[in-house]
Amino acid sequence: MWSIFHDVVAAGDTYVFGADTPRADALAYWFGPGVTPFVAELDSRIVGMYKFMANRRDRGAHIANASFMVARWCAGRGVGRRMGLHCLREAKRAGFRAMQFNFVVSTNLAAVKLWQSLGFAIVGTVPQAFQHATLGYVDVYVMHRALDDVENGLPEQSSGSGT
Amino acid sequence: MWSIFHDVVAAGDTYVFGADTPRADALAYWFGPGVTPFVAELDSRIVGMYKFMANRRDRGAHIANASFMVARWCAGRGVGRRMGLHCLREAKRAGFRAMQFNFVVSTNLAAVKLWQSLGFAIVGTVPQAFQHATLGYVDVYVMHRALDDVENGLPEQSSGSGT
Repeated sequence: MWSIFHDVVAAGDTYVFGADTPRADALAYWFGPGVTPFVAELDSRIVGMYKFMANRRDRGAHIANASFMVARWCAGRGVGRRMGLHCLREAKRAGFRAMQFNFVVSTNLAAVKLWQSLGFAIVGTVPQAFQHATLGYVDVYVMHRALDDVENGLPEQSSGSGT
Repeated sequence: MWSIFHDVVAAGDTYVFGADTPRADALAYWFGPGVTPFVAELDSRIVGMYKFMANRRDRGAHIANASFMVARWCAGRGVGRRMGLHCLREAKRAGFRAMQFNFVVSTNLAAVKLWQSLGFAIVGTVPQAFQHATLGYVDVYVMHRALDDVENGLPEQSSGSGT
Protein backbone atom coordinates (compact mmCIF):
# COMPACT_ATOMS: atom_id res chain seq x y z
CA MET A 1 0.00 0.00 0.00
CA TRP A 2 2.85 2.36 0.81
CA SER A 3 4.54 1.77 -2.52
CA ILE A 4 1.30 2.43 -4.41
CA PHE A 5 0.69 5.56 -2.35
CA HIS A 6 4.20 6.81 -2.83
CA ASP A 7 4.19 6.21 -6.60
CA VAL A 8 0.83 7.96 -7.00
CA VAL A 9 1.77 11.06 -5.02
CA ALA A 10 5.26 11.24 -6.54
CA ALA A 11 3.65 11.79 -9.94
CA GLY A 12 1.99 14.95 -8.61
CA ASP A 13 -0.91 14.83 -11.04
CA THR A 14 -3.86 13.43 -9.06
CA TYR A 15 -3.45 13.76 -5.29
CA VAL A 16 -2.78 16.75 -3.08
CA PHE A 17 0.00 14.99 -1.14
CA GLY A 18 3.52 16.10 -1.96
CA ALA A 19 6.11 13.64 -3.27
CA ASP A 20 7.86 13.77 0.11
CA THR A 21 4.79 12.82 2.15
CA PRO A 22 5.98 10.76 5.13
CA ARG A 23 4.85 7.18 5.54
CA ALA A 24 3.18 8.11 8.84
CA ASP A 25 0.91 10.58 7.03
CA ALA A 26 -0.06 7.93 4.51
CA LEU A 27 -0.87 5.51 7.32
CA ALA A 28 -2.99 8.12 9.10
CA TYR A 29 -4.79 8.82 5.83
CA TRP A 30 -5.68 5.17 5.20
CA PHE A 31 -6.15 3.94 8.77
CA GLY A 32 -7.19 7.02 10.76
CA PRO A 33 -10.22 7.13 13.08
CA GLY A 34 -13.51 6.62 11.26
CA VAL A 35 -11.83 5.38 8.08
CA THR A 36 -12.96 2.12 6.43
CA PRO A 37 -10.19 0.89 4.09
CA PHE A 38 -10.21 -1.89 1.49
CA VAL A 39 -7.59 -3.27 -0.87
CA ALA A 40 -7.99 -4.84 -4.31
CA GLU A 41 -5.91 -7.92 -5.04
CA LEU A 42 -4.86 -9.52 -8.29
CA ASP A 43 -3.09 -12.86 -7.97
CA SER A 44 -2.64 -12.21 -4.23
CA ARG A 45 -0.89 -8.94 -4.92
CA ILE A 46 -2.33 -5.59 -3.79
CA VAL A 47 -3.05 -3.54 -6.94
CA GLY A 48 -5.28 -0.86 -5.47
CA MET A 49 -6.93 0.47 -2.35
CA TYR A 50 -9.81 2.67 -1.39
CA LYS A 51 -11.30 4.04 1.78
CA PHE A 52 -14.47 5.77 2.82
CA MET A 53 -15.47 7.80 5.82
CA ALA A 54 -17.95 10.49 6.81
CA ASN A 55 -17.20 13.59 4.76
CA ARG A 56 -18.12 15.81 7.72
CA ARG A 57 -19.03 15.25 11.35
CA ASP A 58 -22.45 15.60 13.01
CA ARG A 59 -24.78 17.58 10.72
CA GLY A 60 -22.77 16.56 7.66
CA ALA A 61 -22.06 12.96 8.63
CA HIS A 62 -24.73 11.48 6.32
CA ILE A 63 -22.50 11.97 3.26
CA ALA A 64 -19.53 9.69 2.67
CA ASN A 65 -16.21 10.73 1.25
CA ALA A 66 -14.01 8.22 -0.55
CA SER A 67 -10.49 8.00 -2.01
CA PHE A 68 -9.02 5.55 -4.48
CA MET A 69 -5.53 4.63 -5.63
CA VAL A 70 -4.51 2.08 -8.25
CA ALA A 71 -0.97 0.83 -8.84
CA ARG A 72 0.36 2.69 -11.84
CA TRP A 73 1.36 -0.54 -13.58
CA CYS A 74 -2.21 -1.81 -13.22
CA ALA A 75 -4.00 1.23 -14.65
CA GLY A 76 -6.66 0.71 -17.31
CA ARG A 77 -7.60 -2.78 -16.17
CA GLY A 78 -10.84 -1.86 -14.43
CA VAL A 79 -9.49 -1.97 -10.88
CA GLY A 80 -10.76 1.54 -10.16
CA ARG A 81 -14.21 0.73 -11.49
CA ARG A 82 -14.49 -2.43 -9.44
CA MET A 83 -13.37 -0.64 -6.30
CA GLY A 84 -15.82 2.19 -7.07
CA LEU A 85 -18.75 -0.20 -7.29
CA HIS A 86 -17.65 -2.00 -4.13
CA CYS A 87 -17.29 1.32 -2.34
CA LEU A 88 -20.75 2.53 -3.33
CA ARG A 89 -22.31 -0.64 -1.94
CA GLU A 90 -20.25 -0.60 1.26
CA ALA A 91 -21.05 3.08 1.89
CA LYS A 92 -24.72 2.42 1.30
CA ARG A 93 -24.58 -0.53 3.67
CA ALA A 94 -22.90 1.68 6.28
CA GLY A 95 -25.93 3.99 6.13
CA PHE A 96 -24.65 6.93 4.08
CA ARG A 97 -27.16 8.80 1.92
CA ALA A 98 -24.69 10.08 -0.68
CA MET A 99 -21.03 10.09 -1.63
CA GLN A 100 -18.93 13.16 -2.28
CA PHE A 101 -15.44 13.61 -3.71
CA ASN A 102 -13.98 16.93 -2.60
CA PHE A 103 -10.89 17.02 -4.74
CA VAL A 104 -10.99 15.45 -8.20
CA VAL A 105 -8.26 17.03 -10.31
CA SER A 106 -9.94 18.23 -13.51
CA THR A 107 -7.08 17.05 -15.73
CA ASN A 108 -7.38 13.51 -14.34
CA LEU A 109 -9.72 12.57 -17.19
CA ALA A 110 -9.68 8.84 -16.46
CA ALA A 111 -11.01 9.49 -12.96
CA VAL A 112 -13.57 12.07 -14.04
CA LYS A 113 -14.94 9.75 -16.74
CA LEU A 114 -14.97 6.76 -14.41
CA TRP A 115 -16.95 8.59 -11.74
CA GLN A 116 -19.36 10.04 -14.26
CA SER A 117 -19.95 6.53 -15.65
CA LEU A 118 -20.77 5.40 -12.11
CA GLY A 119 -23.40 8.11 -11.70
CA PHE A 120 -21.41 10.94 -10.13
CA ALA A 121 -22.06 14.51 -11.23
CA ILE A 122 -19.69 17.46 -11.09
CA VAL A 123 -21.40 19.75 -8.57
CA GLY A 124 -18.57 22.23 -8.15
CA THR A 125 -15.45 23.56 -9.86
CA VAL A 126 -12.80 25.30 -7.77
CA PRO A 127 -10.54 27.41 -10.00
CA GLN A 128 -6.84 26.53 -9.95
CA ALA A 129 -7.06 24.64 -6.68
CA PHE A 130 -4.41 22.04 -7.56
CA GLN A 131 -0.77 22.69 -8.29
CA HIS A 132 -0.13 20.06 -10.95
CA ALA A 133 3.46 18.81 -11.27
CA THR A 134 3.66 19.59 -15.00
CA LEU A 135 0.58 21.71 -15.86
CA GLY A 136 0.73 24.31 -13.09
CA TYR A 137 -2.50 25.41 -11.39
CA VAL A 138 -5.52 23.47 -12.65
CA ASP A 139 -9.16 23.31 -11.57
CA VAL A 140 -10.54 20.82 -9.09
CA TYR A 141 -14.00 19.26 -9.22
CA VAL A 142 -16.37 18.43 -6.43
CA MET A 143 -18.32 15.32 -7.46
CA HIS A 144 -21.44 13.85 -5.87
CA ARG A 145 -23.77 10.91 -6.14
CA ALA A 146 -26.84 10.02 -4.12
CA LEU A 147 -26.90 6.41 -2.92
CA ASP A 148 -30.67 5.86 -3.12
CA ASP A 149 -30.42 3.43 -6.04
CA VAL A 150 -27.45 1.48 -4.69
CA GLU A 151 -28.58 -1.87 -3.39
CA ASN A 152 -27.00 -5.29 -3.59
CA GLY A 153 -26.27 -4.72 -7.26
CA LEU A 154 -25.84 -1.64 -9.41
CA PRO A 155 -26.95 -1.25 -13.03
CA GLU A 156 -23.37 -0.51 -14.02
CA GLN A 157 -21.99 -3.57 -12.28
CA SER A 158 -22.23 -5.88 -15.27
CA SER A 159 -21.21 -3.40 -17.97
CA GLY A 160 -17.55 -4.22 -17.39
CA SER A 161 -16.24 -1.20 -19.24
CA GLY A 162 -12.51 -0.95 -18.83
CA THR A 163 -12.01 -4.40 -17.38
CA MET B 1 -15.03 32.22 22.49
CA TRP B 2 -16.46 29.00 23.86
CA SER B 3 -19.81 30.59 24.67
CA ILE B 4 -20.05 32.06 21.16
CA PHE B 5 -19.09 28.72 19.65
CA HIS B 6 -21.54 26.82 21.77
CA ASP B 7 -24.43 29.19 21.04
CA VAL B 8 -23.76 29.07 17.30
CA VAL B 9 -23.57 25.29 17.04
CA ALA B 10 -26.51 24.78 19.42
CA ALA B 11 -28.75 26.57 16.91
CA GLY B 12 -27.90 23.91 14.32
CA ASP B 13 -28.52 26.16 11.33
CA THR B 14 -25.06 27.26 10.14
CA TYR B 15 -22.25 24.96 11.33
CA VAL B 16 -21.71 21.24 10.96
CA PHE B 17 -20.84 20.77 14.65
CA GLY B 18 -23.53 19.15 16.78
CA ALA B 19 -25.00 20.94 19.80
CA ASP B 20 -23.09 18.58 22.07
CA THR B 21 -19.66 19.30 20.56
CA PRO B 22 -17.09 19.07 23.38
CA ARG B 23 -15.06 22.09 24.37
CA ALA B 24 -11.86 20.24 23.40
CA ASP B 25 -13.11 19.91 19.81
CA ALA B 26 -13.87 23.61 19.66
CA LEU B 27 -10.39 24.41 20.97
CA ALA B 28 -8.79 22.12 18.39
CA TYR B 29 -10.87 23.79 15.68
CA TRP B 30 -9.78 27.32 16.61
CA PHE B 31 -6.23 26.67 17.79
CA GLY B 32 -5.10 23.55 15.93
CA PRO B 33 -1.81 23.27 14.01
CA GLY B 34 -1.60 25.69 11.08
CA VAL B 35 -4.60 27.71 12.23
CA THR B 36 -4.38 31.51 12.49
CA PRO B 37 -7.19 32.77 14.76
CA PHE B 38 -8.43 36.31 15.43
CA VAL B 39 -11.15 37.74 17.64
CA ALA B 40 -13.28 40.86 17.19
CA GLU B 41 -13.84 43.01 20.24
CA LEU B 42 -16.50 45.60 21.04
CA ASP B 43 -15.97 47.54 24.27
CA SER B 44 -13.31 45.00 25.31
CA ARG B 45 -15.76 42.14 24.89
CA ILE B 46 -15.27 39.36 22.34
CA VAL B 47 -18.17 39.53 19.89
CA GLY B 48 -16.79 37.37 17.10
CA MET B 49 -13.90 35.28 15.90
CA TYR B 50 -12.47 33.96 12.71
CA LYS B 51 -9.61 31.76 11.62
CA PHE B 52 -7.86 30.89 8.44
CA MET B 53 -5.56 28.07 7.40
CA ALA B 54 -4.47 26.23 4.28
CA ASN B 55 -7.52 24.53 2.80
CA ARG B 56 -5.37 21.58 1.72
CA ARG B 57 -1.78 20.49 2.23
CA ASP B 58 1.07 20.48 -0.30
CA ARG B 59 -0.37 20.82 -3.84
CA GLY B 60 -3.49 22.51 -2.49
CA ALA B 61 -1.84 24.69 0.15
CA HIS B 62 -2.03 27.89 -1.92
CA ILE B 63 -5.74 28.31 -1.16
CA ALA B 64 -6.87 29.47 2.27
CA ASN B 65 -9.93 28.27 4.11
CA ALA B 66 -11.62 30.48 6.69
CA SER B 67 -14.39 30.23 9.28
CA PHE B 68 -16.32 32.95 11.09
CA MET B 69 -18.59 33.13 14.11
CA VAL B 70 -20.38 36.17 15.53
CA ALA B 71 -22.11 36.32 18.90
CA ARG B 72 -25.83 35.89 18.26
CA TRP B 73 -26.68 39.03 20.22
CA CYS B 74 -24.29 41.03 18.04
CA ALA B 75 -25.62 39.88 14.64
CA GLY B 76 -26.40 42.48 12.00
CA ARG B 77 -23.90 45.03 13.28
CA GLY B 78 -21.24 44.48 10.63
CA VAL B 79 -18.93 42.35 12.74
CA GLY B 80 -18.86 39.58 10.13
CA ARG B 81 -18.10 42.03 7.34
CA ARG B 82 -15.24 43.61 9.25
CA MET B 83 -13.77 40.26 10.11
CA GLY B 84 -14.19 39.17 6.48
CA LEU B 85 -12.22 42.15 5.20
CA HIS B 86 -9.55 41.64 7.85
CA CYS B 87 -9.32 37.98 6.98
CA LEU B 88 -8.90 38.62 3.25
CA ARG B 89 -6.01 40.97 3.94
CA GLU B 90 -4.34 38.65 6.46
CA ALA B 91 -4.66 35.66 4.14
CA LYS B 92 -3.21 37.67 1.28
CA ARG B 93 -0.38 38.81 3.53
CA ALA B 94 0.28 35.18 4.48
CA GLY B 95 0.81 34.40 0.81
CA PHE B 96 -2.42 32.65 -0.17
CA ARG B 97 -3.66 33.03 -3.75
CA ALA B 98 -7.34 32.52 -3.07
CA MET B 99 -9.84 31.80 -0.32
CA GLN B 100 -12.36 28.97 -0.29
CA PHE B 101 -15.30 28.19 1.97
CA ASN B 102 -16.15 24.50 1.82
CA PHE B 103 -19.38 24.50 3.74
CA VAL B 104 -21.67 27.53 3.50
CA VAL B 105 -25.19 26.43 4.38
CA SER B 106 -27.45 27.61 1.55
CA THR B 107 -30.21 28.72 3.89
CA ASN B 108 -27.79 30.98 5.79
CA LEU B 109 -28.73 33.92 3.58
CA ALA B 110 -26.94 36.54 5.68
CA ALA B 111 -23.64 34.70 5.20
CA VAL B 112 -24.17 33.99 1.50
CA LYS B 113 -25.00 37.64 0.82
CA LEU B 114 -22.10 38.90 2.91
CA TRP B 115 -19.58 36.72 1.10
CA GLN B 116 -21.00 37.63 -2.30
CA SER B 117 -20.72 41.32 -1.41
CA LEU B 118 -17.06 40.71 -0.55
CA GLY B 119 -16.38 39.19 -3.96
CA PHE B 120 -16.94 35.49 -3.32
CA ALA B 121 -18.69 33.39 -5.95
CA ILE B 122 -20.65 30.19 -5.45
CA VAL B 123 -18.51 27.64 -7.33
CA GLY B 124 -20.30 24.52 -6.12
CA THR B 125 -23.59 23.30 -4.68
CA VAL B 126 -23.67 20.00 -2.82
CA PRO B 127 -27.24 18.70 -2.60
CA GLN B 128 -28.65 18.17 0.88
CA ALA B 129 -25.24 18.12 2.53
CA PHE B 130 -26.36 19.78 5.78
CA GLN B 131 -28.87 18.44 8.26
CA HIS B 132 -30.51 21.68 9.39
CA ALA B 133 -32.03 21.67 12.89
CA THR B 134 -35.43 22.85 11.66
CA LEU B 135 -35.41 22.58 7.84
CA GLY B 136 -34.03 19.05 7.39
CA TYR B 137 -31.50 18.36 4.64
CA VAL B 138 -30.50 21.55 2.79
CA ASP B 139 -27.86 22.32 0.16
CA VAL B 140 -24.36 23.52 0.94
CA TYR B 141 -22.35 25.97 -1.15
CA VAL B 142 -18.66 26.00 -1.95
CA MET B 143 -17.60 29.65 -2.27
CA HIS B 144 -14.37 31.02 -3.67
CA ARG B 145 -12.53 34.29 -4.18
CA ALA B 146 -9.15 34.99 -5.72
CA LEU B 147 -6.96 37.30 -3.64
CA ASP B 148 -5.20 39.07 -6.53
CA ASP B 149 -6.96 42.40 -5.87
CA VAL B 150 -6.57 42.31 -2.10
CA GLU B 151 -3.88 44.73 -0.99
CA ASN B 152 -3.70 47.08 1.96
CA GLY B 153 -7.25 48.20 1.28
CA LEU B 154 -10.21 46.66 -0.49
CA PRO B 155 -12.80 48.50 -2.58
CA GLU B 156 -15.53 47.24 -0.28
CA GLN B 157 -13.78 48.38 2.86
CA SER B 158 -15.42 51.80 3.01
CA SER B 159 -18.91 50.80 1.88
CA GLY B 160 -19.88 49.97 5.45
CA SER B 161 -22.98 48.02 4.50
CA GLY B 162 -24.41 46.33 7.53
CA THR B 163 -22.41 48.28 10.08
